[in-house]
Parts: sequence; structure tokens; C-alpha cells
Amino acid sequence: MFSVTCVAPVNIALIKYWGKRHEDLILPVNDSLSMTLSTNELCAKTTITASKSFEHNRMWLNGEEVSIEESSRLTRCLKEVRRLALATGSQKVSPSWKVHIASVNNFPTAAGLASSAAGYACLVYSLARLYEIPFSDELTTVARQGSGSACRSLFGGFVQWHRGVLDNGTDSVAKQIVSSQHWPNMHVLILVVNDQRKKTASTRGMQNAVNTSTLLHHRADKVVPERINQLREAIQNRDFQTFGEITMRDSNQFHAIAMDTYPPCVYMNDVSHEIVSFVHSYNNAMGSLHAAYTFDAGPNACLYVLAEHVPQLVDAIQKVFPSDLMDSAEYLRGLPISPEHLETSQSNKIESLGIEPKKNSIKYIIHTEIGQGPSQLGEESSLLINGLPQNQK
Amino acid sequence: MFSVTCVAPVNIALIKYWGKRHEDLILPVNDSLSMTLSTNELCAKTTITASKSFEHNRMWLNGEEVSIEESSRLTRCLKEVRRLALATGSQKVSPSWKVHIASVNNFPTAAGLASSAAGYACLVYSLARLYEIPFSDELTTVARQGSGSACRSLFGGFVQWHRGVLDNGTDSVAKQIVSSQHWPNMHVLILVVNDQRKKTASTRGMQNAVNTSTLLHHRADKVVPERINQLREAIQNRDFQTFGEITMRDSNQFHAIAMDTYPPCVYMNDVSHEIVSFVHSYNNAMGSLHAAYTFDAGPNACLYVLAEHVPQLVDAIQKVFPSDLMDSAEYLRGLPISPEHLETSQSNKIESLGIEPKKNSIKYIIHTEIGQGPSQLGEESSLLINGLPQNQK
Repeated sequence: MFSVTCVAPVNIALIKYWGKRHEDLILPVNDSLSMTLSTNELCAKTTITASKSFEHNRMWLNGEEVSIEESSRLTRCLKEVRRLALATGSQKVSPSWKVHIASVNNFPTAAGLASSAAGYACLVYSLARLYEIPFSDELTTVARQGSGSACRSLFGGFVQWHRGVLDNGTDSVAKQIVSSQHWPNMHVLILVVNDQRKKTASTRGMQNAVNTSTLLHHRADKVVPERINQLREAIQNRDFQTFGEITMRDSNQFHAIAMDTYPPCVYMNDVSHEIVSFVHSYNNAMGSLHAAYTFDAGPNACLYVLAEHVPQLVDAIQKVFPSDLMDSAEYLRGLPISPEHLETSQSNKIESLGIEPKKNSIKYIIHTEIGQGPSQLGEESSLLINGLPQNQK
Repeated sequence: MFSVTCVAPVNIALIKYWGKRHEDLILPVNDSLSMTLSTNELCAKTTITASKSFEHNRMWLNGEEVSIEESSRLTRCLKEVRRLALATGSQKVSPSWKVHIASVNNFPTAAGLASSAAGYACLVYSLARLYEIPFSDELTTVARQGSGSACRSLFGGFVQWHRGVLDNGTDSVAKQIVSSQHWPNMHVLILVVNDQRKKTASTRGMQNAVNTSTLLHHRADKVVPERINQLREAIQNRDFQTFGEITMRDSNQFHAIAMDTYPPCVYMNDVSHEIVSFVHSYNNAMGSLHAAYTFDAGPNACLYVLAEHVPQLVDAIQKVFPSDLMDSAEYLRGLPISPEHLETSQSNKIESLGIEPKKNSIKYIIHTEIGQGPSQLGEESSLLINGLPQNQK
């Protein structure tokens, strides 16, 4: 009986993935570019145990058993990893043995983070460790077939998912641009907002966009390639001004494409747009970009901000979006923030911009930072004991 | 002393005008297409008196005197009309005489309707009547220089504003596609929603969009020309299905372009998007398009609907967006609506779509219809007596 336990991170796209050119292989219409978050605050964790004695492949997701066979994406990932294991693995663990898989996410559902990206990255990474498959571009194509953006969660730092041109998708791979050490003071605040509205699932929204938006292909073919180059350069130069502007522009364009879909997909709400206005006003008051927003297929904001600017930004957020729960431990989650107030002149500038305080529109804030990618944990972290979840023993 | 009094209508664009290729001449980056509303419910009304004895050009807008000289657009319109008067007018009234102008809008500010379009159309139309200038394409270029979409309010029915290609704008004219008699049962409901947020003025928003959106030119060059042709054909055929779909798609695309602007312009709010969802759900329940939304640079919805479907649509709106003021005379304005309820099966379908009723999100509804364009009124309607507003006598 062999067992490995790994964690894999969430990644937040700066240049958005929206639209597939092949549904089953999950081949995108454009390159995307993301930053990987630290697994200390947010991660998927997976234990895989392989044994000659197991009769079936089994899987537990957040404690509940799920059927592997019913998920074509899970089945495909397992099959593809085993193919790699036979070709390049150590054979210490036979790919023919059945496996038991347990996986959990430590992040709140309300955070609206795509759990599938971290989850599939963790699955594929753990299987690669189990079979001792050397890390290769090909491994990212396996994660991609589980959930598109999962391929980007196999690396730390900044990562580009190349759309590729081949029909079979073997060149649609993720590659690291720079590691987290290149820009270690890059932090993130996730602002979780209150929301009631039903949203179109992103797989469906994407499909509708490809079929009905008359702007999507122009974005994919003309706009994104140039943005990717500009953003890569900004990252290389640690140029937060360009980095922030491209990030905000691409978030807006993604939501523009969603809006241009028929029927339209709307993921941001009034609070999201108030956060957008706030960020622009805040940057104006600061005299340069100190914060850059991006929004995925939901209303929560993800703000990129350098470590040294976090306390002031949080102070301003609390002024503009005060909350009755502001003093509770649940309100500020993740990395600690040393309290620091805006200088009076800057504070006045924000007030004079005429933003009305909006009470209780932000539920809580998660503070995290750039991360190093997936890693293997020790046996003490295992989610399975003798191949079964602990609560089943 | 010569005097004329005219009314001019509001028009609602189906294919939106957004973006200028020349700021001063107000030349657009794409053709637009609108429907003119009846002046019975919504109009601008203008009286112009010319007299040899007047010492200055003077103007009163909604009862308040304004300076003509301080508005380059007003000055330009007056100058251009006088040039036309000298060239083609009757000379009964000398273009060299000073004029007194009084203009009022009868529609509520909250309706978010562009008062400048009706206002400038009324000004130019009234001046043309005063000087007995025969109606020509050139007259529409004068109104255009006051406020772009004003050129479309010089006609009834459906109207196309051609972008033109000349630098001097003489070919950027409005032309009627068909008169209101072609599709006389075309009605409109304006849903006025509650809103607090500050909006970017549309002149500014348009300018920012032209300068920063990487999608706007693709829309103008590739998407709009095809849509204009399809919509013209749908109008010719009185094909409400195609008409409605193109209208909704173009409204969405206009807001997509606004969103793709940097910083983004957001005109719709959560209630607007709930109305969008409702319209798609309602059409699904009906089995075909019965209503088509369009939104201008504000949160209020304008719904196109055939006369025979108005009572059922209003019934459904009142179910999904109930209001405490529903029974007051202020809630349903404009043309009377004979009460008629949805058939139970359709009503059930709407309920089963899981739309939660949203209380008091719609302030009131204006019911109006396709209109015939500007017209001259009798002397009894004059806003000026002996060249001065009545309240100044």
C-alpha cells in the first residue's frame, strides 16, 4: 500500500480564459496568464493511496464519496496519468492497481474561487508523485483535461497557459513565467461580497459566449496576444503600474464579453462595480496604481497589491465599505495585517471623491500572497488511513 | 413679430450610437437605427419668436433663461439654420432678426431619456418652420451638430443615422426607413428603476470608449453594418422575432463596450439586469419573443412590445416587480392599459422559472407607442407671449 498527500494552490487569472475551441479536450480560444496564490491560506489537499488489494477506484470529495466513473473528466485524468506512468514513471507503484482518493478544499464556498482548478491540479500532481512521473509539459495537459485552468495551478509564481494550435491539444500547455521569488511582495486581498443572484455556470457561460458573442473572437485573436506580451514584460520588470492597468482592463473585457453573450451573462453586481469605482478613486488619490482589481465569474473582487501597501488599502476599504463585523476575527482572514492608517491628506482625497460609504456590502476579506505551487506533505497529513477516510474507520 | 411652436419626439436606439469619429461635428463611428416615440406621451416643445425689434438672441429652457452664447452647440445650430434659411428659406422672416426661444420637456428627469435629442430636434425643426426652409437631408446634419441622436428625432417611424464617410460630415444624415404607419402596433414600456449611483456623462463615456476600448472599432466596422441590414429587413417584414433579438443583442453589446472602457462605464444596475433576466424568462414562457429590452446610458429599461401583448406583459412585470405604489395613478403613465391576466399555464411557467419577486425596484412605467415625428402646433400652444415666457409677463 502506497500513499501520497499533496496540496495545490488556487490561481487567479490576470488575462482571462473564456471560451474553448474544443469542449472535450478543453482547448482555449486564447492564452491566459495567472498568478498562483500561496497554499498557506487557500488550497486543495489530496491523499491518494494505491494498493494491489483495492477492488475499485474510489474517491471522497470534502468527506463525501463520489463516483469516479460518472465523471468523464476524472476518468480521463486518471487514464491519462496512468498512460504517463507506464511511459515515464518508476513502476514502484503499478498503474494497474486501483486507487483511493480523498480530497478537500480549505476555502469557503462563498469566496467564489474555482475549486476545480486547485482540485484537479492536486489530483494530477499527487498521482504524478505516486507514480514518480517526472514533471513535464505533458502533465499540464492532463490537468487541463480535468479543468482548464487547473493546468496553471501546477506551478507557483506567474504562469501562462498557451492556447496551442494542434487539434489534439498536446501543445496547449502551461509554463511558468517566473517563480514566486521573482516578485515576492505581491499580495492579494479577496473581497467576499454579499450576493443573492443566480449565476450561469462558467462552462455554460463560456460555451454561449463562443457561440453568440460577436466580440469574443476579436478579443481572442487580436487583443489577448498583445496583452500577454505586455503583461509578461511588466512582470519581468516588476512594473506594477503596467501590471495593474492590464489586469483591470482584461477583467473588464472578460465581463464585457460575458455581457455581449446572448442571453447575457452577468457575474458582477452593484457592489462589485462600487469596488471598481473605489479602486480607481483610491489609485487617483494615491497618485499611482496601488491596487488592481480582477473579477472572475462571480461578484467577489480580487485585488492585487504590494505587501507594503496592504495596510493602507485595507484602511481605505474599511472606510468606504464599513461592516458591522469589522472587529470580529472572521472579517480579516489569512495573513495578519499590521494596522496603519492613511495619511490625512490621502484620506481627505478619498473622502472628497464623493464615495458614499456602503455598509455591510463586503462580508469578509482574505489576505494572501503569491505562492510556490503544489507540494507534497508528510504522512501525518494524510486524509486516508489504510485507504479509507478517517471518519469511516 | 413671427412665431412658431412645435413638438419633437424622443427616439430610442435599437442599434446604438456610441463613439464619435469627429467631436465637434459629431460624426459617429457607426450607423445607428432608432424608433421614434409618440409625442403624445413624451416630447420637447419649443416656441421661437423672431422680431426686428429684439436686441439679443435669448433662450429659456424649462422656464429658466440660459445663455445661447455659452453653448457652442446652440450657437452652431442657429448659425447653420440661418445659412440654410438664406439659401433656401422664404425670406418672409429675415434670418438677420434676433430670436427668442422657449423650450420645455414634458418627460420626467428620472426617466433617463436623452432630453437633448428631442430638444435639438425641436429647435431645428421650429427654426426650419419659422424660416420656411424645405425639409432636406441637410437639416438633419444641423440637428446632429446640436446633439448626435437629435438628427433621428426629425422623423417618425424607424430612422437610420448614416455615419457617412466625408470629413465635413455632409453625408452623415438621418433618413426615415419606414413611417409609423408601417408598424402601427409597435408599443414601448419604459420601466423607470430606482437608482443612486453616479454615472459617467455620455459624451465623456463615449470619448473614453473610443480612446480605450479595444473592442469598439471591431463593433463599429464589422458588427454594426451587418446588424443594420438585418434589422432593416426585420422592420420591413414586421418580423418581431428578429427585431427583438437584434435589439437585445445590440443593447448588450453597447454595455459591453462601455464595460471595456478604461476606467469602465457602468450604466445598468442590479435591477436592470433583473429586468433582462425577466424578459428572457418571459419570452421563454411565452414560447416566442413577446418583449425586447434596450438600455441607454442609464439603468432604466425600454421594452418594445406589440400592442396586443402589452396587458399580459404588464401583468407579468407587476408579478415579478411588485410595487407598493402599483395602484396609484403615478405608477402606470401614458397610454391606458386594459387589464388582462396571463393564462394560468403561462403564469405558472413564469413562477416555475424561479424568479424571486423584487419589491419596489421599479418606480413607475410609461406606456407609449411609435410616433410620427415633429409637428407644428397652433398659436394657442405658444410658450412665448410677445416674445417672453408667460410667467415673465
